[in-house]
Amino acid sequence: MKALVYHGPGVKAWEDVEQPELSADTDAVISVDTTTICGTDLHILKGDVPAMVDGRVIGHEAVGTVATIGTGVKNLKLGDRVLVSCVSACGACRFCRESRYGQCTGGGGWILGNEINGTQAEFVRVPFADNSTYPVPAGVSDEEVLMLADILPTSYEVGVLNGRVGPGDVVAVVGAGPIGLAAISVARLFSPSLVIAIDMAASRLDAAKRFGADVMINNSEVDPIAAVRDLTGGLGADVAIEAVGVPEAFELTADLVRPVGRIANIGVHGRPVTLHLERLWDRNVTITTGLVDTYSTPTLLRLLAGRQVDAKRFVTHRFGFDEFMHAYDVFADAAETGALKVVLSRTG
Amino acid sequence: MKALVYHGPGVKAWEDVEQPELSADTDAVISVDTTTICGTDLHILKGDVPAMVDGRVIGHEAVGTVATIGTGVKNLKLGDRVLVSCVSACGACRFCRESRYGQCTGGGGWILGNEINGTQAEFVRVPFADNSTYPVPAGVSDEEVLMLADILPTSYEVGVLNGRVGPGDVVAVVGAGPIGLAAISVARLFSPSLVIAIDMAASRLDAAKRFGADVMINNSEVDPIAAVRDLTGGLGADVAIEAVGVPEAFELTADLVRPVGRIANIGVHGRPVTLHLERLWDRNVTITTGLVDTYSTPTLLRLLAGRQVDAKRFVTHRFGFDEFMHAYDVFADAAETGALKVVLSRTG
Amino acid sequence: MKALVYHGPGVKAWEDVEQPELSADTDAVISVDTTTICGTDLHILKGDVPAMVDGRVIGHEAVGTVATIGTGVKNLKLGDRVLVSCVSACGACRFCRESRYGQCTGGGGWILGNEINGTQAEFVRVPFADNSTYPVPAGVSDEEVLMLADILPTSYEVGVLNGRVGPGDVVAVVGAGPIGLAAISVARLFSPSLVIAIDMAASRLDAAKRFGADVMINNSEVDPIAAVRDLTGGLGADVAIEAVGVPEAFELTADLVRPVGRIANIGVHGRPVTLHLERLWDRNVTITTGLVDTYSTPTLLRLLAGRQVDAKRFVTHRFGFDEFMHAYDVFADAAETGALKVVLSRTG
Amino acid sequence: MKALVYHGPGVKAWEDVEQPELSADTDAVISVDTTTICGTDLHILKGDVPAMVDGRVIGHEAVGTVATIGTGVKNLKLGDRVLVSCVSACGACRFCRESRYGQCTGGGGWILGNEINGTQAEFVRVPFADNSTYPVPAGVSDEEVLMLADILPTSYEVGVLNGRVGPGDVVAVVGAGPIGLAAISVARLFSPSLVIAIDMAASRLDAAKRFGADVMINNSEVDPIAAVRDLTGGLGADVAIEAVGVPEAFELTADLVRPVGRIANIGVHGRPVTLHLERLWDRNVTITTGLVDTYSTPTLLRLLAGRQVDAKRFVTHRFGFDEFMHAYDVFADAAETGALKVVLSRTG
Repeated sequence: MKALVYHGPGVKAWEDVEQPELSADTDAVISVDTTTICGTDLHILKGDVPAMVDGRVIGHEAVGTVATIGTGVKNLKLGDRVLVSCVSACGACRFCRESRYGQCTGGGGWILGNEINGTQAEFVRVPFADNSTYPVPAGVSDEEVLMLADILPTSYEVGVLNGRVGPGDVVAVVGAGPIGLAAISVARLFSPSLVIAIDMAASRLDAAKRFGADVMINNSEVDPIAAVRDLTGGLGADVAIEAVGVPEAFELTADLVRPVGRIANIGVHGRPVTLHLERLWDRNVTITTGLVDTYSTPTLLRLLAGRQVDAKRFVTHRFGFDEFMHAYDVFADAAETGALKVVLSRTG
Repeated sequence: MKALVYHGPGVKAWEDVEQPELSADTDAVISVDTTTICGTDLHILKGDVPAMVDGRVIGHEAVGTVATIGTGVKNLKLGDRVLVSCVSACGACRFCRESRYGQCTGGGGWILGNEINGTQAEFVRVPFADNSTYPVPAGVSDEEVLMLADILPTSYEVGVLNGRVGPGDVVAVVGAGPIGLAAISVARLFSPSLVIAIDMAASRLDAAKRFGADVMINNSEVDPIAAVRDLTGGLGADVAIEAVGVPEAFELTADLVRPVGRIANIGVHGRPVTLHLERLWDRNVTITTGLVDTYSTPTLLRLLAGRQVDAKRFVTHRFGFDEFMHAYDVFADAAETGALKVVLSRTG
Repeated sequence: MKALVYHGPGVKAWEDVEQPELSADTDAVISVDTTTICGTDLHILKGDVPAMVDGRVIGHEAVGTVATIGTGVKNLKLGDRVLVSCVSACGACRFCRESRYGQCTGGGGWILGNEINGTQAEFVRVPFADNSTYPVPAGVSDEEVLMLADILPTSYEVGVLNGRVGPGDVVAVVGAGPIGLAAISVARLFSPSLVIAIDMAASRLDAAKRFGADVMINNSEVDPIAAVRDLTGGLGADVAIEAVGVPEAFELTADLVRPVGRIANIGVHGRPVTLHLERLWDRNVTITTGLVDTYSTPTLLRLLAGRQVDAKRFVTHRFGFDEFMHAYDVFADAAETGALKVVLSRTG
Repeated sequence: MKALVYHGPGVKAWEDVEQPELSADTDAVISVDTTTICGTDLHILKGDVPAMVDGRVIGHEAVGTVATIGTGVKNLKLGDRVLVSCVSACGACRFCRESRYGQCTGGGGWILGNEINGTQAEFVRVPFADNSTYPVPAGVSDEEVLMLADILPTSYEVGVLNGRVGPGDVVAVVGAGPIGLAAISVARLFSPSLVIAIDMAASRLDAAKRFGADVMINNSEVDPIAAVRDLTGGLGADVAIEAVGVPEAFELTADLVRPVGRIANIGVHGRPVTLHLERLWDRNVTITTGLVDTYSTPTLLRLLAGRQVDAKRFVTHRFGFDEFMHAYDVFADAAETGALKVVLSRTG
């Protein structure tokens, strides 16, 4: 079969590899119908993800069809259309028993396209298939469901639920890339009074407006801390969400929040940040971090099926599998192409 | 009357000042029977607390007797024996309505010995007396109740409750000074399986053992991160509490915690700290900060009356008001004197 | 002044009474601009509320203007436009300190039009005015704010928050009178997937549809338990809300809920109900009851000002104060008149 | 092998049956070393449990040794010493994913000795062995661990955690049989101020005292409602736990609780109860029910290993397997024999 293979920093190819087989009886092999590229995949290609090795297939998001099935898989049958989640779950370790699948110590967690071959391929082996896939509900398209493989549960759990967004809240989101837009979008589920998007690119702030932000602040032009204070009677935001992953963004996020507020970090960080405890020690703030656990995936599937979450608008570009190398270019050059999520589908 | 007056950095005196009078009808004037010195008072004397001005009385902890009472005070009467809390509460602002008295925007919060004259005096004016004092239960001594003015609610709310200590947890406390010992002591109320004290002074670790720590780690001798991992099957502590207030201590605390663990900062910080988000972003940790709100004071009074909290053991030295200057020396030189809390009482 | 006065079961009059004066320095006297009639007022008129005595003014909802002000009131000034809440709060008792104002033991709770003279009058004395009134935000009308005196916080706190409605939930509301419609309406703030209204009157089910219900079940025609099971794959609703106040309605509500579901009772009950513990003991359900505490009033005011709550649609009839007796007839005969909330306003 | 077999109401025998074999690859067969009899087993013998059929082995609690193991079992190996929990969990259904194993819809829940053959046998087949057994920690005896098969997690989860017992609380427990004593015992983990035991048998109240109750009320002699009010300044208990399972006990429990209190039902009920909503509708109480989920079993194992839970004292009588019929008589006649838990162990 064909797959997108990593060959060391900066090198990748859409090339022939062995088709995967079951290696444990709780595995399933899924025929990939649709997959996508994540910002994290770009990090992998820079060589930043230590578990990744030469020859491994990239990708941790897919919608596909069950092609082969282990004897220990209880809830899938051949031909089922399923969402392959970015997080696999053994279902039995301490963390899985507490619904903290992202921290699975039984062989799961974020393994696809990281510790084992991933989803940017014609077929993918999914370990612990019962706990790592979800049936696709009737009436929704593959590309909509694909947005529930990573970006929507991540922004919902790590941004909105960790930040405890509630009715009437003021929510500030720093960074209006795909994950920030997703956070803006799902924050709306809890009826905040004001969602403020902060970014330095006018085009991203335009997108933020379309995705549901009430106020857009370009922090290359105005002081976002002063602006948020003005909007909140001097207090600060109830919830501030970091959706970038660089120290400056985190430090700005932490400065936006009111006493007793919540700071929810979604960004993937490669460097330490400065935490101004000399200002925050007496302000009763809560800071959370998180890899997605995907415990919210069933809820998000219901909301998607009920048209309460609009997943389609994340998809800006569509390609066939044979255009995979080009799709990477389009996604990597988002500033020019305006790409949010690029979807790749099996052809012919 | 006599009071301990601040006269700029490094200068203080036990001297004659005007006796306080009511200035609002919700005030009470309390005749101070017993007071104590807090580590924060030493910070004030260094000139580190900006609201403090020359001529102001220091102190934010007292047990006393109601001497004068405003017409708007509903729940006190002359002669009542009361605890004066370090936090005053207007009772009507947004934060007070949410039991977040420490963040009161209606004129309360930590004001005694900071924004107005404090408790190290023969008399103190207490604003919002209904919400800022607590009746002393029968059967407990003044010096026991005095420990509920600050140190016990602070360690309980900001350390133990913010850290969500629960039965079976492993709790690591960094710093075994008075506030760390208090945290060790009240963590026990939730039946953790293991309380680990970390400090560089052998004498403080001895105290930690007496206050209920199961394991004492001298981090000038052994690597505390490795030691905590060894004690937790490689995972890390469920809860780690910072009770020092310097960057090194916070950074150590943050490194002790397991995935999905809680980091509760109690320490008063004067400088920024480094937060290793490059290690923590995907570990689903929660970091909390806090000034005490004193919402737990009624609970702690019940526990004290029921002998479930032992407050007496914090008191290492006792003085009369006329020995105030000496008491400060003893408290400031804790390394030599072994002082935890020094109690000063009205004499004659 | 004129007021609506209770004179024993079945007897009321709009008649001249003494104008109220301050009796404590934390009181305010409010000039009533707009008031309304609650279902509870009809109970009072039947003689069902034991604290009510001959000669007392009825009513616990108002929007008005501050006319006189006690010296202990900190946050109001003459001429302020305020919401008078159905619940007064001393602000200092154990329950007020925990934001449980409805259970105030310091002289507050539901006292207006019950233990003291109420709001169906030209003027009303409001005790603990700082904690019992709320400034009216700019841009909203009196009659909109009036809906926050009782019906909206009650349905929000006692129905939706107690029932822990969340995104994707199935919510069944038994009873589509004013309080049930309010619950349907504010449940939407949390993005449930399906709101099911159950009632025996077609006209009320029509209203339920307008207020946001997705499915309307007439339980005089179909079995609502079977219908809810069909809608939920046999499981039952996540949350079931009782908004009637009779045993049959409660018993139906309890039968609608799935394992681990929540049953939130809003209805005012005069008789015991049967609880089928022989069916529920092993289903891990939670049942809650509640008088409103009004801790959510500031949040609801923000949502109202932001047009996220539509309060206006509750108002079906408008009268001048001089039509008070007629307004009661219209409200009492809701089956005929279609009255939800009738608003009475000062004239001339 | 030998097993205790149900043969219709009132009839049981310790007799020869087929030894169990694996029927799914996630099964394990456990060689039972120690088992016990539950009050529910007596209900079964009366014919009260509809799923039970003639010829089925009784029992849902065991400690044993892994004898045979399915190929899909990941975390067990032959010879492992394990606790067999009363609740089995498929690990993949909606309820298991939310740690609500007792409500498992994937073939688990309470099935042992109910829907399939149980643990009162020399060998037992345990489905979903990874999620339904727990390794026995070093240093604890079989009979101690056996108390974690049902009675301790049930009283902890359904009584103490559902009731949200906290430091300083007043906890009233109605019924001082084994499950009530267990609730008294584990409530102590949260440092309540006062644990009140209520029963009509002096001998059970003596036991309650030994298990940690502070106050014992014989409700055949004194009015327990008045007594609890006297102990709580007229308010009522913070938490009231029903540990009997008859209407009178539930109704008493509901009358003991203060406004904003919690009523936690543990008792197994066969008949409806009367709920006095006419008194409770405005008191903001929470009522919970529950079958144990066993999510707390790992925590309780840590507490047992740390000697923070004393499980041994529940065991009043010890027998060999060959004395099974006699053991049932001793357990059934608890009023005479004083039996709490009777332990049966493999002999020879």
